Amino acid sequence: MNQLHPGGVTAPKGFSATSLHCGVKRKKKDLALLYSEQPLAVAGVFTTNQVQAAPVILGKSMLQENSPIHGVIVNSGNANACTGDRGMEDAKMVIHEISKATGYTNPAFLMGSTGVIGVPLPMNPILSHIDQLIQSLESDQQGGTDFAEGIMTTDTFKKEIATKVNIGGVTVTIGGAAKGSGMIHPNMATMLAYVTTDASISQKTLQLALDRDVKDTYNMISVDGDTSTNDTLLVMANGAAQGSEIMPNTPEFELFMEALHRVNLYLAQSIVRDGEGASKFLTFTVKGAKTKDDARTIARSAVTSNLSKTALFGEDANWGRFLCAMGYAGVQFNPNKVALSLSSSQGTLTLLDKGNPLSFSEEKAKIILQERDIYIEATLKEGDEEATAYGCDLSYEYVKINGDYRS
Amino acid sequence: MNQLHPGGVTAPKGFSATSLHCGVKRKKKDLALLYSEQPLAVAGVFTTNQVQAAPVILGKSMLQENSPIHGVIVNSGNANACTGDRGMEDAKMVIHEISKATGYTNPAFLMGSTGVIGVPLPMNPILSHIDQLIQSLESDQQGGTDFAEGIMTTDTFKKEIATKVNIGGVTVTIGGAAKGSGMIHPNMATMLAYVTTDASISQKTLQLALDRDVKDTYNMISVDGDTSTNDTLLVMANGAAQGSEIMPNTPEFELFMEALHRVNLYLAQSIVRDGEGASKFLTFTVKGAKTKDDARTIARSAVTSNLSKTALFGEDANWGRFLCAMGYAGVQFNPNKVALSLSSSQGTLTLLDKGNPLSFSEEKAKIILQERDIYIEATLKEGDEEATAYGCDLSYEYVKINGDYRS
Repeated sequence: MNQLHPGGVTAPKGFSATSLHCGVKRKKKDLALLYSEQPLAVAGVFTTNQVQAAPVILGKSMLQENSPIHGVIVNSGNANACTGDRGMEDAKMVIHEISKATGYTNPAFLMGSTGVIGVPLPMNPILSHIDQLIQSLESDQQGGTDFAEGIMTTDTFKKEIATKVNIGGVTVTIGGAAKGSGMIHPNMATMLAYVTTDASISQKTLQLALDRDVKDTYNMISVDGDTSTNDTLLVMANGAAQGSEIMPNTPEFELFMEALHRVNLYLAQSIVRDGEGASKFLTFTVKGAKTKDDARTIARSAVTSNLSKTALFGEDANWGRFLCAMGYAGVQFNPNKVALSLSSSQGTLTLLDKGNPLSFSEEKAKIILQERDIYIEATLKEGDEEATAYGCDLSYEYVKINGDYRS
Repeated sequence: MNQLHPGGVTAPKGFSATSLHCGVKRKKKDLALLYSEQPLAVAGVFTTNQVQAAPVILGKSMLQENSPIHGVIVNSGNANACTGDRGMEDAKMVIHEISKATGYTNPAFLMGSTGVIGVPLPMNPILSHIDQLIQSLESDQQGGTDFAEGIMTTDTFKKEIATKVNIGGVTVTIGGAAKGSGMIHPNMATMLAYVTTDASISQKTLQLALDRDVKDTYNMISVDGDTSTNDTLLVMANGAAQGSEIMPNTPEFELFMEALHRVNLYLAQSIVRDGEGASKFLTFTVKGAKTKDDARTIARSAVTSNLSKTALFGEDANWGRFLCAMGYAGVQFNPNKVALSLSSSQGTLTLLDKGNPLSFSEEKAKIILQERDIYIEATLKEGDEEATAYGCDLSYEYVKINGDYRS
């Protein structure tokens, strides 16, 4: 029962969702809604960027106010970031209208936005489609899939997943959807990701679980080193599974954490797999670090380096670039103790041992690097902690996509 | 007299230099020598990367030992980084041989290396050419130019410059040479840069001048966000102009600082202009910051962002990406007070005022952005400090150069 399943934000009981094309984007779906009749306990993490989009500023204050939340409305194609006073008024207006149309006291919905920065949110297309959006809500798998599609920007595939866990004899479901795929270098948050569950859990406990889990999931991925103005990850629980309330520091909490981690890790990895222009998926593990934070910082630096990423794109076993990027992570370690190995489904090569480079077959390295999924393991011999970061390559396609994103 | 002049490391009196092809690289010059008969006062800054190349480790310890230094030997094509114990022995051996061949007590020369990481230094080509290297030393401009050419890797043009300053009735000359052009994101240092002067100045005073100046020159440039394992900047004074000794906190010191700054700024900017694959040169100024360090940090973050750099490459006025990158620099400021303008020789556009985006002519923006030299100015209205960072675009060519650097 502890496995990942097909599904998304409507997999847990009591959630419905939808999306449609309203006209923010030229053709594709650009307005999505997630809804629960039962009020939601919502935990969230948001971008640490000083420049925060209007929906981020609003969302943070709404989570503190503890007003009853029944869902999320998300538009893609426009980030409503760097839009000044008008941006705040626009986001409030959308929340007001969707709350009114569903018959709840304003504000009953959180808002998410993703897309171009610095352009006012096109209000007419959004406001004129709110009734249609509500009418098209569906509680089956199609509703969840529509939601996952509606929040996409340059993503090439939708990102959704679900899992189930038995907690005290009750089956609890967790589902989620996320979007990438550029400006990905989350810091205490991620791009847009929405996770739902029918578990019974308070906002406070849910936030505890989330804060613990993001450190090893969304905060361990990077596509291009740019921390977005809109990063938002929400976990929403409606208790519809009718289980007992999950309390902190209990075996039930740990079971929930494990299931939440599966969903978050899958979504975070999906974002990197679909990174703008990405043709490779790199899993970089740092072992033998003094502290867990050291391991995380070093692993993340290695997958963020442009030079490491272009070497990966070129299928070039230029491992010195990874060691160089580990070295400027800002963490102290002794390079003379480091071991480094490279592997894929085609085999493993040890490249460095105790700081000394080993001679290796370039031919074998090339065969290993031709695979899509590449693994690098660095062992520091400074302690017993480890962490894994996930990255992708830097390709011509990334430059192409971002050289002319707005047109 | 306070202007930049053609010239390089042999412009000051008493320096000679040269370079030749020894065989580390396939065809191009790869071994360079800089020499002064009079012993040198040497100030240096080095990479802060935890992973440091053998010549960096050796250089740092030699500067502390205060043994008489008569010059620098530099090889290009191999960084002698991540080469373990053997790398240290190899660098020591080269220094030993050049000291012996010139008749000075070992170690009389510093060493610099630049090129591929993780491959042992090819010793035979280097050692077998030391005598020829010494015999070809020249004190004229050609010697300096040869040196500037000999330290290049993927650089497309040589980087050298000179300036003169009258200090107490004596003409003091400062000259310099540097190489780029990838793995450029200096932190307390730079790629290889060598500055010479015939001023009379102690090592301690020279280090004081250098530490002050790098903050606004080499530490304000970025090509790709990767801080190298080999970054080394040396300033070497031999006193051959026979002026009085320059002492700290004097008008003479400030005159020297100004001249040193001109040379350092020119070389730092040249590195960015010749950044791997660069087609644009961006000057990003942050004004109205609370502190000078805040201004530097924000400006540097803006020129380092991959998304900002691809927008620049695409000549796309996607200014939100610059604001986003300012926002994640780790410095607190109020986005609602920020003003932003874009200019080139083709005109100026104000894009943002008090955090509110202004409508602008996309046509005019395109005309401005078609120039090679682009200027962006951000005003924070948080205080009175300012700083300028220098960056380039991220192009297909960068990915091409670095996707297969080793072959």
